[in-house]
Amino acid sequence: MPEPIHQVTFQPDNITVDVYRHGENLLRVAMAAGVHINASCGGNGTCGKCKIIIDKGKVESEHSEKLSDEQWQQGYRLACRTQVIDDLTITIPPESRIDNSALKRKTGGQRHILKARDLNTLVQGLSINPAVFKCYLELPPPTADDNMSDLGRLMREIKKSYKYDRISTDFHLLQRLSQVLRQADWKVTVTLVYNPKGFKLIDLEPGDTSKDNYSIIIDVGTTTVKGQLLNLEECRIAHSNTTDTDSENLCAEDARYNSQVGFGEDVISRIVHSQKKGGLEALQQAVVADINEIIAHLLESAGIRNDQISHLVLAGNTTMTQLLLGIDPKYIREDPYVPTANFFPPVRALEIGINLPDYIHIYTFPLVSSYVGGDIVAGVLGSGIFQRDELTLFIDVGTNGEIVLGNCDWLVCTSCSAGPAFEGGGVKNGMRASQGAIEQVRINPETFEPMVITIGNQKPLGICGSGLIDAAAEFLLTGIIEPNGKFDRTLKTSRVREGDNGWEFVLVSAEQAAEGIGDIVLTEGDIDNLIRTKGAIYAGCRILLESVGLSFNDLDRVIIAGGFGQFINLERAIFIGLLPELSTDKFMFVGNGALLGARLVSFSREMMKDAQRVSDMMTNIELANNMKFMDEYVAALFLPHTDTNAFPGVMKMLEGNN
Amino acid sequence: MPEPIHQVTFQPDNITVDVYRHGENLLRVAMAAGVHINASCGGNGTCGKCKIIIDKGKVESEHSEKLSDEQWQQGYRLACRTQVIDDLTITIPPESRIDNSALKRKTGGQRHILKARDLNTLVQGLSINPAVFKCYLELPPPTADDNMSDLGRLMREIKKSYKYDRISTDFHLLQRLSQVLRQADWKVTVTLVYNPKGFKLIDLEPGDTSKDNYSIIIDVGTTTVKGQLLNLEECRIAHSNTTDTDSENLCAEDARYNSQVGFGEDVISRIVHSQKKGGLEALQQAVVADINEIIAHLLESAGIRNDQISHLVLAGNTTMTQLLLGIDPKYIREDPYVPTANFFPPVRALEIGINLPDYIHIYTFPLVSSYVGGDIVAGVLGSGIFQRDELTLFIDVGTNGEIVLGNCDWLVCTSCSAGPAFEGGGVKNGMRASQGAIEQVRINPETFEPMVITIGNQKPLGICGSGLIDAAAEFLLTGIIEPNGKFDRTLKTSRVREGDNGWEFVLVSAEQAAEGIGDIVLTEGDIDNLIRTKGAIYAGCRILLESVGLSFNDLDRVIIAGGFGQFINLERAIFIGLLPELSTDKFMFVGNGALLGARLVSFSREMMKDAQRVSDMMTNIELANNMKFMDEYVAALFLPHTDTNAFPGVMKMLEGNN
Repeated sequence: MPEPIHQVTFQPDNITVDVYRHGENLLRVAMAAGVHINASCGGNGTCGKCKIIIDKGKVESEHSEKLSDEQWQQGYRLACRTQVIDDLTITIPPESRIDNSALKRKTGGQRHILKARDLNTLVQGLSINPAVFKCYLELPPPTADDNMSDLGRLMREIKKSYKYDRISTDFHLLQRLSQVLRQADWKVTVTLVYNPKGFKLIDLEPGDTSKDNYSIIIDVGTTTVKGQLLNLEECRIAHSNTTDTDSENLCAEDARYNSQVGFGEDVISRIVHSQKKGGLEALQQAVVADINEIIAHLLESAGIRNDQISHLVLAGNTTMTQLLLGIDPKYIREDPYVPTANFFPPVRALEIGINLPDYIHIYTFPLVSSYVGGDIVAGVLGSGIFQRDELTLFIDVGTNGEIVLGNCDWLVCTSCSAGPAFEGGGVKNGMRASQGAIEQVRINPETFEPMVITIGNQKPLGICGSGLIDAAAEFLLTGIIEPNGKFDRTLKTSRVREGDNGWEFVLVSAEQAAEGIGDIVLTEGDIDNLIRTKGAIYAGCRILLESVGLSFNDLDRVIIAGGFGQFINLERAIFIGLLPELSTDKFMFVGNGALLGARLVSFSREMMKDAQRVSDMMTNIELANNMKFMDEYVAALFLPHTDTNAFPGVMKMLEGNN
Repeated sequence: MPEPIHQVTFQPDNITVDVYRHGENLLRVAMAAGVHINASCGGNGTCGKCKIIIDKGKVESEHSEKLSDEQWQQGYRLACRTQVIDDLTITIPPESRIDNSALKRKTGGQRHILKARDLNTLVQGLSINPAVFKCYLELPPPTADDNMSDLGRLMREIKKSYKYDRISTDFHLLQRLSQVLRQADWKVTVTLVYNPKGFKLIDLEPGDTSKDNYSIIIDVGTTTVKGQLLNLEECRIAHSNTTDTDSENLCAEDARYNSQVGFGEDVISRIVHSQKKGGLEALQQAVVADINEIIAHLLESAGIRNDQISHLVLAGNTTMTQLLLGIDPKYIREDPYVPTANFFPPVRALEIGINLPDYIHIYTFPLVSSYVGGDIVAGVLGSGIFQRDELTLFIDVGTNGEIVLGNCDWLVCTSCSAGPAFEGGGVKNGMRASQGAIEQVRINPETFEPMVITIGNQKPLGICGSGLIDAAAEFLLTGIIEPNGKFDRTLKTSRVREGDNGWEFVLVSAEQAAEGIGDIVLTEGDIDNLIRTKGAIYAGCRILLESVGLSFNDLDRVIIAGGFGQFINLERAIFIGLLPELSTDKFMFVGNGALLGARLVSFSREMMKDAQRVSDMMTNIELANNMKFMDEYVAALFLPHTDTNAFPGVMKMLEGNN
């Protein structure tokens, strides 16, 4: 655990919490501490409900028209517009608070919010030596006595300086090799890429460009495509001074929905579409266009050129990978569910339409089966399960829920169709975890008024995965919904109402939401989708454990990956039955597992080797046509679960509440 | 030496010669025996001058209007239309003969005609295992219990059946893999290619096509592009029954002039053209078009499809190779003469415009230097020098003359600009060694009437390399030209005349030549080109020997390669000073060295490894700016040479003649 930087004490309840980041938003601190402050604009400062008084300590805070001059003088501030830069004592005035001590006791505080972890805390012995790397060389010009070929001269120097053996050459490079060497007066930078058979020379640039070495990594998700731009060179430097490589080497990131969504929400409907005339091409072009947009955006926001990129790493599930590469996914869907290959040899990115220089080949992760793809191998790699003795359950919550169980000796895996609820799919006001997405929700158990915080403290645009988990847990806790997911039609609040899509809860009214969004609601259909999602994942975990004769209690660790946002509230996830009720210190959240693994592979050629080893280790358990799974799934379609014995803590909390 | 099949005795001179081929043409037998029979139509039967009488034995012969019924009854036949199928006794009637016993004594007979040799007689321990090969496999279809990926299933079966390890896959194949496997009901033929890093899976076909395994090999010469289509599968079968693999596996061959000739005759003028705007592209497209025509013709004449080809091997000099691959050859021409690379990694043939399936990559030979290219490495490989203890001089006579000296321990090499005379370039009626080319010439020392034989016994179209050597030797021997190459203007024959291009000798008159050709002549300019060609090669040999402190007398063997035609008359080549005067049994002729090496590499992956080893072994001696070479060259611009001591036998013969 990192050391806390500041402490904030909330009055009148006298709750003190640690703050780990200088400048942390005060509303978030309150939320994390389980201290309820009214807030309905997502933290944007427009509702003016989160007034607090600074009793002691310094803050940075914005003036707001919601505060009179007199209030400002008295120490009033808007919590959502206030940054913690000192130890503080805060009073929550009556108009901003309810007595939420009961609530606080039930759901705990900050220490169970799991934040995505750094590479270095996850993987043992990560040595930073990128698979793609650059070397600056000064060659002796040819003479009559030393007139070997240009390539021979270059290779001689590489071998002399770096002791690499077995270096092959990209043919395309040869077409400009002689010219570049002479234009650069024999002072050049070579780009080499490691592969299991040796090294390959892929690029040659005039002068010393060895500091320009960037990698693009892309998670090609069924619902969301996410990209990051990494500085491979900085990382190496950063690594020697600090353990926090993440902040140093991540230059830019971007995400957008996979445009294939227009052809179907899940992999099955995409495969169906791919079988239509021109379908495969349309699907491929759609996702390639997304990737090109992401690349353009990454380059623009980092201010670097296309030709400064050296490496492209893609992680996706099996169907996404085959569609991207133009490989017919037909048989993924047909019993006995066979993918075309477990590893796709590198292909020139340009050849499939990706706007990168022609020397860049796509690295995709090896995969395990039709429904446990390279993204999961990346996640297992990234989370270091395969390196540890601890028995670990790894859960990647995406449109498919993939589950891996094992340790450094063995790994079993499976997947279940979870649905896209956590990425905003199948949820009326659902959205990805991006700016303006509601990521945290608390509900006043007496007034049913919600406290919402959005990513970036923007006006709310919709709700993302972690917000959905929070909301469902709060609904259950405050009796807004029953364990079967139906709204209590008798509640005395106008927020529960019958809308166009059946019963719903108004989370944010149109005037507090971003313009043009209208009321942000959660419908019974949304809750139903959430229940099916969490039910499938929980059932999958149980079946996988059973398949090797184990149960949840045998686990040393549970690692959660997925696009929920920056963090996930553990108690809430357990509360709705998404995760098993285990000691909270067994859980770890790694954020996007595919990107994590892709980053490792960019930084470390040993990890590239390990990726193959991990995929070879993983034994696939097929859930399709598995009757036991169907039984488990149906049993899990309840909040938290029909088997209440599995959730004694949750049941106790619910009983205490009623 | 093979055993003779028949014997033919020529009367009245009582000369008996061995015949090694059943059905051999009788005019050729006479020519080889040094027996002069008048013949001016190239062996086409139209001049009717080669009448002979069959005294004893059976022949196959065509009726001819040149023979009366009475003559036919008396046993008269036209020698050029008669095949030897029995031991014969022949009388040459007075009208067809001259007394040529003097000539015969001077120039010797058949045993010094060198025919191109078989692979197996040249290379030691050649085991036939083609670098590209096919395997037929029957896979178990996937089941729920065995649902590994399609590629994994295929690889498992390949490894099970053939024990190959480290097999990579061509990405393009994956795009149709799953489909083909199922359409073929899991019964398929895979094509694998060997490379130094292991094996690569390049093609998959439904059913058993393992017998359809063909290779195309191309010699990309500066003047001539030659191609052969080989049956890699037949070869394997043939090999176990007979040592004559050539006839079994060579399905078709074709040759045509390199269309780049339009941009310049030699490599230097091609490089100059490549530096003009669009020049490189134009040169590349020109030779690619030639290759495509050759491929189309090879396929058509063998009656096989494009997709039955598995392998493409190209051999060319350094400039030809770089131009073909679209790699700027600029620096080959500039001091210190540096090629771009010594080995070009395989590139998809389709990518440079060659009409072959997309799984075929071009294999080009490794090269030594800017002027000792892959064609020479192929020749050294093909002729087995690198395997033997014997000190061998290898001479490849093309537009460049490349010379290699050494044995299994060391190899030195050089090249000199020889000019295209032996391929028909720079010679008024010159042509490649193809149908209708005059390949053998004898001249009656009294009447100066020539005896000419053409390839295919066609009406003469022009004269090829071996015909040129023969003609020059006969001119010298009969006093038609002086040792400086000038015609004797005083000779009493209308065949020596002053034409539009200066003095010339009429070899074939227009009425005996093929239609539209006109008189076929050799001019003083042609003789001059020949002298410069032979002078450069001889001088190059001397300098290369000197560079390692040796002389011609130290040689155990001299191997001659080049596009002279099917054979070369050794005494004649020595007579004009092209080859050193050594014991005739030291000489060997291998025909086209590049194709020979390319064939080896097609048939044997060990030879593919050896190609690299050979190119690494070869040390290049640069002749450009070598003053010693210039002196040697000038000294050699004489027939046979200014240093008459080096050619005592030739001088004796010439003296005896005068």
